[in-house]
Amino acid sequence: MTDRPDPSPPSPAGGLSRRSLLAAAGTGTLGLAAGAAGYAAYASTREPAPASAVVPLHGEHQAGITTAAQDRMHIAAFDVTTQDRDELVALLRDWTRAIEAMAQGQEIGEGGATSGPYDAPPEDTGEAIGLAASRLTVTIGFGRTLFRDDGGARFGLEGRLPEALIELPHFPGDALEEARSGGDLVVQACADDPQVAVHAVRNLSRIAFGRAQVRWSQIGFGRTSSTSRAQSTPRNLMGFKDGTANLKSEDTAFLQEHVWVSGASGGEAWMNGGTYLVARRIRMHIETWDRTPLGEQETIIGRTKRTGAPLSGGEEFTEPDFALQGRDGPLVPAGSHVALAHPSHNDGVRMLRRGFNYTDGTDGLGRLDAGLFFIAFVVDPRTHYVPMQTALARDDILSEYLRHTGSGVFAIPPGFGAGGYIGQTLFEG
Amino acid sequence: MTDRPDPSPPSPAGGLSRRSLLAAAGTGTLGLAAGAAGYAAYASTREPAPASAVVPLHGEHQAGITTAAQDRMHIAAFDVTTQDRDELVALLRDWTRAIEAMAQGQEIGEGGATSGPYDAPPEDTGEAIGLAASRLTVTIGFGRTLFRDDGGARFGLEGRLPEALIELPHFPGDALEEARSGGDLVVQACADDPQVAVHAVRNLSRIAFGRAQVRWSQIGFGRTSSTSRAQSTPRNLMGFKDGTANLKSEDTAFLQEHVWVSGASGGEAWMNGGTYLVARRIRMHIETWDRTPLGEQETIIGRTKRTGAPLSGGEEFTEPDFALQGRDGPLVPAGSHVALAHPSHNDGVRMLRRGFNYTDGTDGLGRLDAGLFFIAFVVDPRTHYVPMQTALARDDILSEYLRHTGSGVFAIPPGFGAGGYIGQTLFEG
Repeated sequence: MTDRPDPSPPSPAGGLSRRSLLAAAGTGTLGLAAGAAGYAAYASTREPAPASAVVPLHGEHQAGITTAAQDRMHIAAFDVTTQDRDELVALLRDWTRAIEAMAQGQEIGEGGATSGPYDAPPEDTGEAIGLAASRLTVTIGFGRTLFRDDGGARFGLEGRLPEALIELPHFPGDALEEARSGGDLVVQACADDPQVAVHAVRNLSRIAFGRAQVRWSQIGFGRTSSTSRAQSTPRNLMGFKDGTANLKSEDTAFLQEHVWVSGASGGEAWMNGGTYLVARRIRMHIETWDRTPLGEQETIIGRTKRTGAPLSGGEEFTEPDFALQGRDGPLVPAGSHVALAHPSHNDGVRMLRRGFNYTDGTDGLGRLDAGLFFIAFVVDPRTHYVPMQTALARDDILSEYLRHTGSGVFAIPPGFGAGGYIGQTLFEG
Repeated sequence: MTDRPDPSPPSPAGGLSRRSLLAAAGTGTLGLAAGAAGYAAYASTREPAPASAVVPLHGEHQAGITTAAQDRMHIAAFDVTTQDRDELVALLRDWTRAIEAMAQGQEIGEGGATSGPYDAPPEDTGEAIGLAASRLTVTIGFGRTLFRDDGGARFGLEGRLPEALIELPHFPGDALEEARSGGDLVVQACADDPQVAVHAVRNLSRIAFGRAQVRWSQIGFGRTSSTSRAQSTPRNLMGFKDGTANLKSEDTAFLQEHVWVSGASGGEAWMNGGTYLVARRIRMHIETWDRTPLGEQETIIGRTKRTGAPLSGGEEFTEPDFALQGRDGPLVPAGSHVALAHPSHNDGVRMLRRGFNYTDGTDGLGRLDAGLFFIAFVVDPRTHYVPMQTALARDDILSEYLRHTGSGVFAIPPGFGAGGYIGQTLFEG
């Protein structure tokens, strides 16, 4: 996609008034409800993105959750630095308008990357000029600290903190780094072109200037889960297919039960149509794993490495048969990852995973700092993450090869419509 | 490419003997001269890669230099831990065989990712199973410290250190980190799929176990230069097209003059057909840059942001006219980046750049750690890098927005043929 020819020559600077842009936008998707800082959608000079590369953003749920998983990701958590509720709301409005523009492959702001006043900083940083929309989605969420800190409630959000938005307990083997954990806001940008995802996070960070600042960020270079039956199952850095049993966008009844919040009332009603994002940066001791015999690797996972079939037989999508006995006991060992994580051993719980492989250079000991940036969307982390992770951290032999170095839980508000903004139900519901 | 279906079912473990594999390979490209550790090429169970995705490796020069720049990169420097020359040579042989296999989209080693003995670690780590060859190239080079350390010559390489393989001087503004600089060996893996590039570095690191270990590594998520006229010019994280004036693979006469070593004699004859790689990790103060007015940005660069045309007019590939005067002096200011870096102001010197954008999370101050991993291939760093970088570090206003945090210079030996290995001329010439 980086080989596309440049778009047609720019419009003359200032040649389009904001009014004409708003009129031109026309669809109702764009241009309405510009935020306090004036980030209106921009009728860009970039070429129209191919429709197939544009993910529709408006709807009951935010995009980037059941959207067929894109290949690359840049995720960032932010600390809100303003104390002013109106400024926070204005930030969410501005972000929403910018996200709408970028998802269409357009530059953000009235002036785009180059058409603003010559003596002002450009509104768009420009590194995505000429790139396709690349199925960009940006998903926004709220951390527990947005609702209250040591001083009590923040931003007038008394009574709005959902009970499910917990602080995770300490799990055995956790080695969490403060600088890679938590945050008041999360921004998950996914796209098939990494430059498009990086551009999104960077420009949202820029828009946030004076209101919020990046706390941590992470690039994921390759998806580790499929979220659609049209996608094949990718491999994690242990070399195994990851997410074979993942919930898929086609599993609408399961999604309703295990992912989407519904029927919440009172101070939590704003979360209906939303979900919870659990993020864990899981470093893998890949050098140790790579010295583990194939048979042991497969026993630990409970699947064959090449096909991903359960050790009880069949092919990748065959249900594991935990009762089937081999010479030395069950063919799929009770302590294997697939057994411990299986819904039948977790009160029927399922999750929608959407993680990414990462590699962040090298540690001081000549080892690659590589692993899985785990992301799961669940209806309630108390029932859908904590019990399973407790069991995995305690019993899963795989845990010996893993170290959780970052962590975050975020409430993902529902979707939005034309003229609305992400998080509107929290502040105006 | 991650959506490709899995390859056909695996061969039975151990069902192919090494002999039959060698016979099957047949082409002479594969299977010869297996290294001391036994990393022969493997007739993989992965599907044959589409020919278009396979870059031929054999020839006068190594691949990955004039190869049309791939979209993603993983580069790593290694410290050699063995003191034994034969072990070092064996490592280079093993690496070469593995590189040949991976560039064909094959698994490495006799057993591949899963077909070895069940009670032994797999020879290939497996995360690239099912992925296309993705135009993988792996380019190997030698650092100055490979030839000598404080104790004198290493590995019997007296008299073999090329004069051009210098230690770079300190440039104004350098903030080099020891842990991101230097190294005895460099491995530059480029591919259109990042998982393929990461797989290559990781498996070469694994093969090196006990002989060399990773000193630093860096992922680049998007190319910042074109090396072929068939490619459009990509943008760096300042939002500008980067590398418009770059040498291209079509410029054969220029390449002969500015990139490839020729006519070296005596102890340096082994470098004929080789080149020198200069690596600089250049962090950009993007938050500061983003607050700079468009006009100032363009004056600093000397080109327009949208089209990349020089400020003296025309389109991207129009030669800048440094004499053309505007109201306030030359339209392309003498202190602009394009002027300072232009061959006419650098004794006609040109370079082949092959850098990548990077983003490595966040620093402790809420800023993205992002920038350019600069890579250039030049015939001699003394004439083709030091003078220009001295001028840029001193006079380029752009330097205020940059900080060089990592550095390395490596001698890139010539290419190799069937049965040969990378670096053979150094050890056997």
